[in-house]
Amino acid sequence: MIKIDNTTATISSSQLQSATEACRSVLANKQLGFWQLPQRPQLIADSIRAAQRLRENGDRLLLFGIGGSSLGPRFLADLYSHSPQQIGICDNADPLYLERIWGRAEDWKRGSFVFISKSGNTIETLASLQRFHEYVRAVDASWWKRALVISEPKDNPLTQWAKEKQVPVLEFPVDVGGRFSVLTPVGLMVASFMGKKAEEFMQGAAWSLQHEKLAAELVAQSLASFERKEWITMFWTYSSLFQHFGDWMVQLWAESLAKKETVNGEPAPRVSTPVAAIGATDQHSIIQQVMEGARDKWVVIHRVAELASCGPLGKDLLIPSLKPLQNQTLGRLLQAEAQATAQALAHQGVSVLELTVQDTSPSSVGALLMLWQWVVAGLGASLRINAFDQPGVELGKRLALKILSGQ
Amino acid sequence: MIKIDNTTATISSSQLQSATEACRSVLANKQLGFWQLPQRPQLIADSIRAAQRLRENGDRLLLFGIGGSSLGPRFLADLYSHSPQQIGICDNADPLYLERIWGRAEDWKRGSFVFISKSGNTIETLASLQRFHEYVRAVDASWWKRALVISEPKDNPLTQWAKEKQVPVLEFPVDVGGRFSVLTPVGLMVASFMGKKAEEFMQGAAWSLQHEKLAAELVAQSLASFERKEWITMFWTYSSLFQHFGDWMVQLWAESLAKKETVNGEPAPRVSTPVAAIGATDQHSIIQQVMEGARDKWVVIHRVAELASCGPLGKDLLIPSLKPLQNQTLGRLLQAEAQATAQALAHQGVSVLELTVQDTSPSSVGALLMLWQWVVAGLGASLRINAFDQPGVELGKRLALKILSGQ
Repeated sequence: MIKIDNTTATISSSQLQSATEACRSVLANKQLGFWQLPQRPQLIADSIRAAQRLRENGDRLLLFGIGGSSLGPRFLADLYSHSPQQIGICDNADPLYLERIWGRAEDWKRGSFVFISKSGNTIETLASLQRFHEYVRAVDASWWKRALVISEPKDNPLTQWAKEKQVPVLEFPVDVGGRFSVLTPVGLMVASFMGKKAEEFMQGAAWSLQHEKLAAELVAQSLASFERKEWITMFWTYSSLFQHFGDWMVQLWAESLAKKETVNGEPAPRVSTPVAAIGATDQHSIIQQVMEGARDKWVVIHRVAELASCGPLGKDLLIPSLKPLQNQTLGRLLQAEAQATAQALAHQGVSVLELTVQDTSPSSVGALLMLWQWVVAGLGASLRINAFDQPGVELGKRLALKILSGQ
Repeated sequence: MIKIDNTTATISSSQLQSATEACRSVLANKQLGFWQLPQRPQLIADSIRAAQRLRENGDRLLLFGIGGSSLGPRFLADLYSHSPQQIGICDNADPLYLERIWGRAEDWKRGSFVFISKSGNTIETLASLQRFHEYVRAVDASWWKRALVISEPKDNPLTQWAKEKQVPVLEFPVDVGGRFSVLTPVGLMVASFMGKKAEEFMQGAAWSLQHEKLAAELVAQSLASFERKEWITMFWTYSSLFQHFGDWMVQLWAESLAKKETVNGEPAPRVSTPVAAIGATDQHSIIQQVMEGARDKWVVIHRVAELASCGPLGKDLLIPSLKPLQNQTLGRLLQAEAQATAQALAHQGVSVLELTVQDTSPSSVGALLMLWQWVVAGLGASLRINAFDQPGVELGKRLALKILSGQ
């Protein structure tokens, strides 16, 4: 389903052994919910049922959430929605942007609305709900009859509103953090809404959890890149449909690994800043920097094998210089560019790892998502940091409320 | 139109003086076309006329291009198109992604197609043209009657095809590089197609060229960030509509500044890797890294002043915890978050500069685009590198063709 094709750095058996132990320690920790999700069929069944009910309102959906509550669903929406209009992602408190997504209020006489916040207290999501109410109330004063909430099963501002308005609430598991939530109802409900089988994501996730060697190799390679002082990790994905996979990866990596202190209160080891790039697009933007800039990067290239057979170019060539591509496919060009980029980078002494994902099916995607979640959790265990909190985001939130209240 | 609000680092008068001289040297170089564009009314007039002609085919447009030929127009399309479907940007040789943009072939019985490549030889753009032909030929065998080419006025594969099929060709000025081309017909034709006045972008651009002190301050601040060994420059923009401004900035910075050699053949000085982020969205993803990770970043925050008055939240509050926002706007929340993020970062010792752009009007946007082009060119002059080539991208291209031909 997923394999490492090439890597410029080899890992010693002792590095692999210690990474393996870190990966095992993650799966031994029963307080972590994310790796136990394939064993919770009730969450899958609830997601499917909720999606079916929303579909009765038509096939369009607005999703309100931010960070871990939007990046996973956004990736799945990019990959699987039948049109760019099917799923609108309202993930920023930006009034012009939201109005662009919403379009005309009349369009929302049908369609559904899902509000996602683990804590139920996310200011951007609650304020966007309020703004949407102002926007749509003239068309349907009780629009929330077509709404759904995904939140922790606790009393909080969002679930209290849901209770008052009789909006159904789907469970955001308390033992799964926002950035580890794509395989909870957060992602599964949206995938089901688009007609994808939620069970298949879980089969893929289970596949990854059985491939300890793959996860351990990625943990060991990541640690080795830090030892080489490669302080930028580029997740370079060769398909535009994976663009928001890159954004999801950036959050997972950045929030989980960059910590001031270890679990023992000592200064935490330095980790890299993650950057997402898209091939071949970014071969026309940032690659000059990677090729000729400082050797401070580790490039992880993701290719999708099935693309190579897609996009036939035919033999009726309009432009003679395309001769080498006659009767080939556009996907084959993209694949050749991915391989060539890896070779060119390696040739310049840039560290590269190539990962091939079989296809864009739910099982492959479920495998990819669970694999990286496990790797990041394993990295946290290796670095002895808490990969599941995010203390650095609190100060900004407090200051924003202070500014708003005029203090 | 644009001003620096706050900065954590102060610049000495000698730093500012030397940056000023670098900025002046750019405007003294008559071989550089980008800063002379406001003096070329013919390009503006041609862009407007071409856009008017394309509008006769309906108000939808597919744009084929990559890198400098797509990032500028993509930013403008995000900002100004009346719906996400109006302008489709085909900027990757990804077959599944392109088919998602194209939708049903029948939809393209109307609409227009523009192919942009400075050299006329960009493999991804030519191959996508070929693929589109295979896709749409059954619906309209001579679809190119509704096409336009933007390319250098020279014989090349794209202009030869245009000549053969009688497709009009709009001039891509030979003295303007791809990543400096947004204020040529590349961006102006698309903006005109969306009903925006091309002249206003140029008025804004001219405004920036008169504000030498602003450009010099940004050059000096950038150089000072390199002296502080801040090897990641984050362009953090507080509006989702500016997302592709960030991508445009990344290309401009990365391709222009990361060079192996100076113009004298000496090893070039080290520069930063640019990263784009969006607020408030990325306050839920990468900010943990910026707050608690290594102090290797300079954060440049862009705010749009007019947003603060947009998105009224009303007084009929659905959720009691929104009380501090009663009768305020969503844009005010976004602005408070931008300010709070800058304060929180500064409090943690992260270097920050805040830039305020007045609004999203063509003149403000034209000013912003010209300002950063001037700053990057000025940085190139300061660092004594060629900011206008990209030698590091060639090896990958050669290797891709080798792989495709089976060698």
